[in-house]
Amino acid sequence: MKPSTPSPSPWVLSERAALMNPSVLRELLKLTEQPGIISFAGGLPSPKTFPVAEFEQACARVLRDDAHAALQYAASEGYGPLRERVAAGLPWQVDPAQVLITTGSQQGLDLAAKVLIDTRSRILVETPTYLGALQAFAPMEPQVHSVASDEEGVDIAALRAAQAAGTPARFMYVLPNFQNPSGRTMSEARRAALSATAAELALPLLEDNPYGELWFDQPPPVPLTARDPAGCIYLGSFSKVLAPSLRLGYLVAPKEVFPKLLQAKQAADLHSPGFNQRVVAEVMKDGFLDRHVPRIRALYKSQRDVMLAALARHMPQEVSWNRPVGGMFLWARLPAGLDAAALLPKAVARGVAYVPGAAFYAGAPDARTLRLSFVTASAEEIERGVCALSAVIREHMV
Amino acid sequence: MKPSTPSPSPWVLSERAALMNPSVLRELLKLTEQPGIISFAGGLPSPKTFPVAEFEQACARVLRDDAHAALQYAASEGYGPLRERVAAGLPWQVDPAQVLITTGSQQGLDLAAKVLIDTRSRILVETPTYLGALQAFAPMEPQVHSVASDEEGVDIAALRAAQAAGTPARFMYVLPNFQNPSGRTMSEARRAALSATAAELALPLLEDNPYGELWFDQPPPVPLTARDPAGCIYLGSFSKVLAPSLRLGYLVAPKEVFPKLLQAKQAADLHSPGFNQRVVAEVMKDGFLDRHVPRIRALYKSQRDVMLAALARHMPQEVSWNRPVGGMFLWARLPAGLDAAALLPKAVARGVAYVPGAAFYAGAPDARTLRLSFVTASAEEIERGVCALSAVIREHMV
Repeated sequence: MKPSTPSPSPWVLSERAALMNPSVLRELLKLTEQPGIISFAGGLPSPKTFPVAEFEQACARVLRDDAHAALQYAASEGYGPLRERVAAGLPWQVDPAQVLITTGSQQGLDLAAKVLIDTRSRILVETPTYLGALQAFAPMEPQVHSVASDEEGVDIAALRAAQAAGTPARFMYVLPNFQNPSGRTMSEARRAALSATAAELALPLLEDNPYGELWFDQPPPVPLTARDPAGCIYLGSFSKVLAPSLRLGYLVAPKEVFPKLLQAKQAADLHSPGFNQRVVAEVMKDGFLDRHVPRIRALYKSQRDVMLAALARHMPQEVSWNRPVGGMFLWARLPAGLDAAALLPKAVARGVAYVPGAAFYAGAPDARTLRLSFVTASAEEIERGVCALSAVIREHMV
Repeated sequence: MKPSTPSPSPWVLSERAALMNPSVLRELLKLTEQPGIISFAGGLPSPKTFPVAEFEQACARVLRDDAHAALQYAASEGYGPLRERVAAGLPWQVDPAQVLITTGSQQGLDLAAKVLIDTRSRILVETPTYLGALQAFAPMEPQVHSVASDEEGVDIAALRAAQAAGTPARFMYVLPNFQNPSGRTMSEARRAALSATAAELALPLLEDNPYGELWFDQPPPVPLTARDPAGCIYLGSFSKVLAPSLRLGYLVAPKEVFPKLLQAKQAADLHSPGFNQRVVAEVMKDGFLDRHVPRIRALYKSQRDVMLAALARHMPQEVSWNRPVGGMFLWARLPAGLDAAALLPKAVARGVAYVPGAAFYAGAPDARTLRLSFVTASAEEIERGVCALSAVIREHMV
């Protein structure tokens, strides 16, 4: 008897589907969620910072005072009072009509990609850059060019060369404050130069600022968008100052682009959860963030200090790292001859995890780099984890 | 003095941006939200059906028992217990690993479009079809072919002709139960024929079922997906049985397609709101929907009956309409010579609104059709609104 032939699959996937890949980070998170692993891998805010009591009160109040509207379909633009609060909180003149509430700032990346990228359009990113942005852009099939960057941010000469080397890029994606993954912050001088150069080159900027409020000693320089609102789309988030699971972010776009972003938003999920928007607006009233965010800053600064001290104490001198002035991440580099991806399983076997830096490069990766989050683990875990990681590195040094 | 030349705009929009348009429905909703207008236009569930007390208790319980996990970043697949509940509630064998929680079922359309449509791919839809689906597909730049359909659903001969007339379609999009906009339900015989024909033609089906639970006298025939799970993606929603503003839906996909849909989901918004997912899982436990949904069915059935009676009482005999056996919408057709879009401003001037049917056609529209929702207005408003609409129609009949 011949075996029966299975019927051929009816599914033909799009070309873009081949460009989609499982998120290295999300797969890693599963690995590192094993009990007993000290994880510097996740980009998870410390749950200590979640304002649970305030959410409880806000949920109760919204459902008591305004349940029917809060549970019904709502405008794609977002909840008016929340849009007004966002506009009022930004350090430049923003009309609330230019604010679009998004399902996390990740959705802002998806919408911008849809509206600005055609197949094979060139776009520019920093080196390294946020992996989630590369994943959001990929389905629109761009050519991504990685612009050389140093500790102060984008290299302006490299930017000029990149823009001259091919068809003009549709935009450059930048994350100037406490960058994910590198923790670096773009200097005032570099921002001024980038803003002027982008205007001169007619290059739109897509500015992502999820961590900007999490500064340690002084606020970062003003956003690029504040310098040229007509030439920039700005993305912000409530995930790092309130809670990620509400999935609320926002974008601010010039009047020329806003209507198309709004139409893309309608098509993507009609609107972001209206109940969540009202809860966040309720929590934020009376200046709650002005009292709440300083506590996050103080906690994360102390955790950064613990990590810096542990690194200085334990790491071989051939390992280098930076000193972030805000945010959640620190960027380290292994000694020559070591590969952070190859080392990871050995580190996990010793009970500590991190994210290899290679995933964050749109171009040729620096395989020696790695990202360490200092906000999720406790101070005691940071000390133990860095000690274990140092031992693994020493063992594998030649 | 010469006027200063404004600097040229740096923005170049994608080709797909030109295919995006403001949602006629959402623009209409703004128009019809004027005080005093009786609106049959919106697709808004009756707020009387929102289980406010249960949401209050669930929010409090989730934040009391599980706040840190409920407010943190979460898996892109969705909250495990909710995926299990979805799988267990479907009338065919579903592995929870095949369930992806989405930000409303609208997002399921966006994800399917990304994974299945290349520029100029052919896709098939019913005549008429859900406008939101056309909007979700448009950014991927498909060629949309409208397959002739009658009161029982897709015309099978027309489907065969459509599939033979060009390159094979990537999928056919169908909404078999109490369709938006037409209110019609695909018969058992037509489902059997469509399922067999799709399998024979190797044509995947994208089955959208947001209204399936809202049947009036008896459940609709089993879903198309139940007949061939390997050949279908199924979309469901909590918007119509719990509340729209939570923005939670789900899709069920074969193992062959699921990983790409999941990757598209990660890139689109990381995950759907984890807090909302836990609240919905909490509300649904102990069989709440088994007690709650029958109340929605009874309310909507009585509202349909009020509208049918009002139509019979007031409308000129040249107006025709159908008798939906579930859902939220009724489909009517004006006398020859009238255009539902042209008539709308006159109806609004008389205090009543509806959605002209033309927006729901991917091909040549039937300009005489219109969609009437019978669930948002009260019984008394339905009577008054239908009376006013009848008067407007009579005035404009030739």
